[in-house]
Amino acid sequence: MAKEKVRYIGDEVAAVCAVDADTAEEALDLIQVDYEELPPVFDPLAAMKAGALLVHDEVPNNISVTIRKEFGNVAKGFDESEFVFEDSFYSQAVNHAPLEPHGALAQYDLQKKEMVIWSSTQIPFFLRRNLATTLLIPEGKIRVIKPRVGGGFGGKLDMFAKDFCACWFAKALGRPVKFVYEREEVFIATRQRHPVHLKFKTGIKKDGTILAQEFYAYADGGAYNSTAPLMITLLGYFLMIPYRIPNLRYEGFHIYTNKPVGGAMRGHGIPQARFAVECHLDKIAGKIGIDPAEIRIKNSIHAGEPHPAKFVINTCGFAETVKKAAEGIGWREKRGKLPFGRGVGMAGGAFPSGTSNMSHISSGAVVLMGRDGAVNVLTGAADIGQGAETVIAQIVAEELGVPFENVRVTAADTGITPLDPGTFGSGVTVRAGNAAKIAAASVKRKLYQFVAEKLEANLDDLTCENEKIFVKGSPDKGMTLAEALKAYQYTDLPMPIVGRGSWMADATEPTTLLKEDGNFSPSYSFMTQAAEVEVNPLTGKVRLIKMVAAHDCGRALNPMLVEGQLEGSVVGGMGQALYEEVVTEKGQVMNPSFLDYGFPTAAEMPEIEAIEVETDDPVGPFGAKEAGEGTQLSPAPAIVNAITDAIGVEFTELPVTPEKILAALKQKRET
Amino acid sequence: MAKEKVRYIGDEVAAVCAVDADTAEEALDLIQVDYEELPPVFDPLAAMKAGALLVHDEVPNNISVTIRKEFGNVAKGFDESEFVFEDSFYSQAVNHAPLEPHGALAQYDLQKKEMVIWSSTQIPFFLRRNLATTLLIPEGKIRVIKPRVGGGFGGKLDMFAKDFCACWFAKALGRPVKFVYEREEVFIATRQRHPVHLKFKTGIKKDGTILAQEFYAYADGGAYNSTAPLMITLLGYFLMIPYRIPNLRYEGFHIYTNKPVGGAMRGHGIPQARFAVECHLDKIAGKIGIDPAEIRIKNSIHAGEPHPAKFVINTCGFAETVKKAAEGIGWREKRGKLPFGRGVGMAGGAFPSGTSNMSHISSGAVVLMGRDGAVNVLTGAADIGQGAETVIAQIVAEELGVPFENVRVTAADTGITPLDPGTFGSGVTVRAGNAAKIAAASVKRKLYQFVAEKLEANLDDLTCENEKIFVKGSPDKGMTLAEALKAYQYTDLPMPIVGRGSWMADATEPTTLLKEDGNFSPSYSFMTQAAEVEVNPLTGKVRLIKMVAAHDCGRALNPMLVEGQLEGSVVGGMGQALYEEVVTEKGQVMNPSFLDYGFPTAAEMPEIEAIEVETDDPVGPFGAKEAGEGTQLSPAPAIVNAITDAIGVEFTELPVTPEKILAALKQKRET
Repeated sequence: MAKEKVRYIGDEVAAVCAVDADTAEEALDLIQVDYEELPPVFDPLAAMKAGALLVHDEVPNNISVTIRKEFGNVAKGFDESEFVFEDSFYSQAVNHAPLEPHGALAQYDLQKKEMVIWSSTQIPFFLRRNLATTLLIPEGKIRVIKPRVGGGFGGKLDMFAKDFCACWFAKALGRPVKFVYEREEVFIATRQRHPVHLKFKTGIKKDGTILAQEFYAYADGGAYNSTAPLMITLLGYFLMIPYRIPNLRYEGFHIYTNKPVGGAMRGHGIPQARFAVECHLDKIAGKIGIDPAEIRIKNSIHAGEPHPAKFVINTCGFAETVKKAAEGIGWREKRGKLPFGRGVGMAGGAFPSGTSNMSHISSGAVVLMGRDGAVNVLTGAADIGQGAETVIAQIVAEELGVPFENVRVTAADTGITPLDPGTFGSGVTVRAGNAAKIAAASVKRKLYQFVAEKLEANLDDLTCENEKIFVKGSPDKGMTLAEALKAYQYTDLPMPIVGRGSWMADATEPTTLLKEDGNFSPSYSFMTQAAEVEVNPLTGKVRLIKMVAAHDCGRALNPMLVEGQLEGSVVGGMGQALYEEVVTEKGQVMNPSFLDYGFPTAAEMPEIEAIEVETDDPVGPFGAKEAGEGTQLSPAPAIVNAITDAIGVEFTELPVTPEKILAALKQKRET
Repeated sequence: MAKEKVRYIGDEVAAVCAVDADTAEEALDLIQVDYEELPPVFDPLAAMKAGALLVHDEVPNNISVTIRKEFGNVAKGFDESEFVFEDSFYSQAVNHAPLEPHGALAQYDLQKKEMVIWSSTQIPFFLRRNLATTLLIPEGKIRVIKPRVGGGFGGKLDMFAKDFCACWFAKALGRPVKFVYEREEVFIATRQRHPVHLKFKTGIKKDGTILAQEFYAYADGGAYNSTAPLMITLLGYFLMIPYRIPNLRYEGFHIYTNKPVGGAMRGHGIPQARFAVECHLDKIAGKIGIDPAEIRIKNSIHAGEPHPAKFVINTCGFAETVKKAAEGIGWREKRGKLPFGRGVGMAGGAFPSGTSNMSHISSGAVVLMGRDGAVNVLTGAADIGQGAETVIAQIVAEELGVPFENVRVTAADTGITPLDPGTFGSGVTVRAGNAAKIAAASVKRKLYQFVAEKLEANLDDLTCENEKIFVKGSPDKGMTLAEALKAYQYTDLPMPIVGRGSWMADATEPTTLLKEDGNFSPSYSFMTQAAEVEVNPLTGKVRLIKMVAAHDCGRALNPMLVEGQLEGSVVGGMGQALYEEVVTEKGQVMNPSFLDYGFPTAAEMPEIEAIEVETDDPVGPFGAKEAGEGTQLSPAPAIVNAITDAIGVEFTELPVTPEKILAALKQKRET
């Protein structure tokens, strides 16, 4: 709840709890708040100037995060360049628009003095910590259960008023209390993708080799900070991957304004940067006469290469994704060769598979095998629709040699499941998957010890296939899993067969945000998406005809889920490129409904071709890398580049609406 | 569902499922069943005679279980006796009358092909097995969750139609289905305490030493078997404890009739035998002129004594319970000395703390410690109101040196918790408690290993009190639990702190039911209850004034829960002695409602004095033995013996109603 000062339209000042919604609305009407109006600040570039009014009195110039970094020798890089190009871009505010609004149900057990909260959250354990801190209840007396969540996309990472208020009222009243946001509240009072102003300067050789870049980013944070330090870091650091940028100057600023609050959203800062740099790159390619696919392959970073910020790249299929995406869209036949109004474009990207450095929290896992061979996995991992539970069950089934159907996952319940940082940074498969794999291996070992004795075989010679454990190479010398478990059950003291696992990215050279460089993530995914569009010059409407999404996610443990991510990212990218923008006037959101906000629907869906470029990563479970947020980086710039190819006009501000296209075409005709 | 033949009034022939109860009732009215009437058999003694009609065609003489045993040399024992006494008794049918009727809610997940059932059951894992067998679904695809259960008393041990039908319909319809019995259905279609005809013959010396007994029991099983073999075994074998019976002949029969089905009920056969033998003993004491308290102490078995059926008695406070109960009731001043209409009586008993021999299922436990010191115990133990979860939490808290409030118990969910046989035979505290203690010790050891390194101390020198771990004798050399956990959390790879435990009674000399003798239970509880009553000679009404319950339950881990058990047992004993009987006419239950059945209520409650006679048992966790069913053995015979003391009339049939008392007083006056 806001105290003394209200900083934006979504700042809560009072909460009401009632037996039904109508009564609550009536009670709200009875609350009178006297506001003393203060002069607002809405433009981030104005807000950071000297003398601007302060959103938070203690934050000078409204700049809540500043990052200034130089990698290599930028001046020297520009000196050696044969061309230098400069550009400015703006990426808009976008809402996550999860189908399920944010909600929480809390119940306080007066006897146990325990709070139980079912919350649509991506981070049950952090939410527990935040509730403990704010409700002044010990962590052990708060149980956060994550039920099925109808979409998160980063928008359910923070603790919101619905969590705190549901708990507070539940404790005060001794009754269960539910808070569910209306759609309007999701728009104005949760989080959104940061609008960012971006300035680029690139030095390049004639042959297309990039030598140096300067990059300035000004993110409009709205009234509060949320995960801004990480966002500002990712925005700059991931310029140095997938391309080799030997010399980079990066300055990033997170600025307070009296507007809705920016937070994590699929890609977390990188989509904004990617839009800018990939469009900038296409422009450069055009100016120096190099094919955009070629310039991307030429500057591609490779596995094992040193990285300016000390990232360790074990596997990298980037160049391959460029080739596959080009093939898929028919690049050679189409780029620059289609009739006016049609065009193709591409864009690349890279993303971490979780972080090595943050919060020092490992994923834990416990695997229990029942006497009927049924396996229960306790994991803190928070499935928000991406399929985390499915993939963890697959990993455990594979490790144990039992059918997938035998594995049940009990997840994301701080009262039962081991610690896990939650779902963000696309680290779940690698981190929680590795933990589950270790726990399953421990279960296997415990069972094999028993079977080895029974079979008078060597423990290390045993293997399991189709629920039969046998000596490698001698399938006859074995017993079924059911036989083994029954025999085990009838020993004198059959301990529950339980295995423990814990995993955290190797942090020997960790990145300390804003302090020291190091390996940011245990592994990096790479992707290229290529779009074909048709632009109607009379209406300015853009139709996305086809999108080819080539993704190196290591080994795809569940190809259907990876495809789902790729397809979802195309929808997100279309929204970012063409349709979506949270429009504010004087701090007020003007389009806080699905009708007015207008994200792409089934009617706008293009043909999508998903191509997996498999690399077998040594760190991930069974070779897996991330396949969640990385997919979101390339679609928007690929679409914008395709529009440029179609009508010969460049765009630097998102979304590229029909109005902007018509205005640009008009200007083009007139000049 | 009954096939071809309906054997009693509670045999289900069809099931209906509807959107509400009214619709279901209407649908039921539309079902027409054509019954061909067969001649019935209602009297067990008639049913076992040659030529009687058979309830089950394959069971000759309707005898489903027969046991014939001789311990010692009975003929010789009688030869050496100075007196021989014979008696016959009858103990009636009694319903468990749990406040919550039997219910089940099933939900079938069509995607996972998994059945989830919430059932008011005492045995989640056996129920899972029975559902798997009957529904033809693998055990791993059935998850049984035991919610809070409103009383079991043995009546929720079997799988009932409500379980099967809820699951069957849920699978067929793909919708959640709930079956809750009405009170009438609880009476006619679940289980009841077996009515038993009992015949006794006892040989005794002048000084009160019992030399030999012959004992015949005829249990009316109703139409089916349920847990009859165990019941018939307990009924006879527990005659040899708490008294030293060196020579015993026991013949027991379980007989089918066309009546409601007998099953397990608190004490499981022993309360019927105890009523008979304790009243028989009082009669003998009177005849040979020995004080009833003295004859009980004289014949008391002692710890370490050999037992005819090879029971191993490690601890025995029986004689002490007789003394304490006598003191408590004012035996010396009152017995035989109160005015007509008032009297005191006592009765003893002994009970197992779970079984050593049955089903070969150990209790498993898993204990997890969270980073805030909160402890989660996974146990299969099924709390049905007796406080199992509380006691297990206490045991874990004690073992770990953390406050009770820090321990959460997750119990009786076959999808999450380790295997446990369930709640029967009063074995939960010893079996599941020991398992939890072992798991907690394992957690402690894992944490201590880390702390020992940090403190540069010896692992075995560490202890924990008030959440501080320190070197024994040097409280300064230590760290708080919170400090230890935080430091552990920040190590490179903090595995979840998980401990495993498993416990099963040592079965080196197991009893095989009806086959070989051996140690039936890991330990035995002992008890004496003494009653003071007032009999109104004009109305025949009995008022129980006071009950003293002295119980040797080893070490009482939770004295309040033990008292609760003792108090509850007095209510049960009053019902058995004075009020309750499931009355059938031609197989039809005549009083299937709480109004007609008439168990004792708060208005009839006497003063109750609970006395714990503590022995420190070496097997149980922290010295505990059973305190659940044993308490139920003595109240009824103590009350009946007190009535005899009050009005000088003996009773051999339960319940001792006002009508029987008035008739007996009339007969006494007339003779």
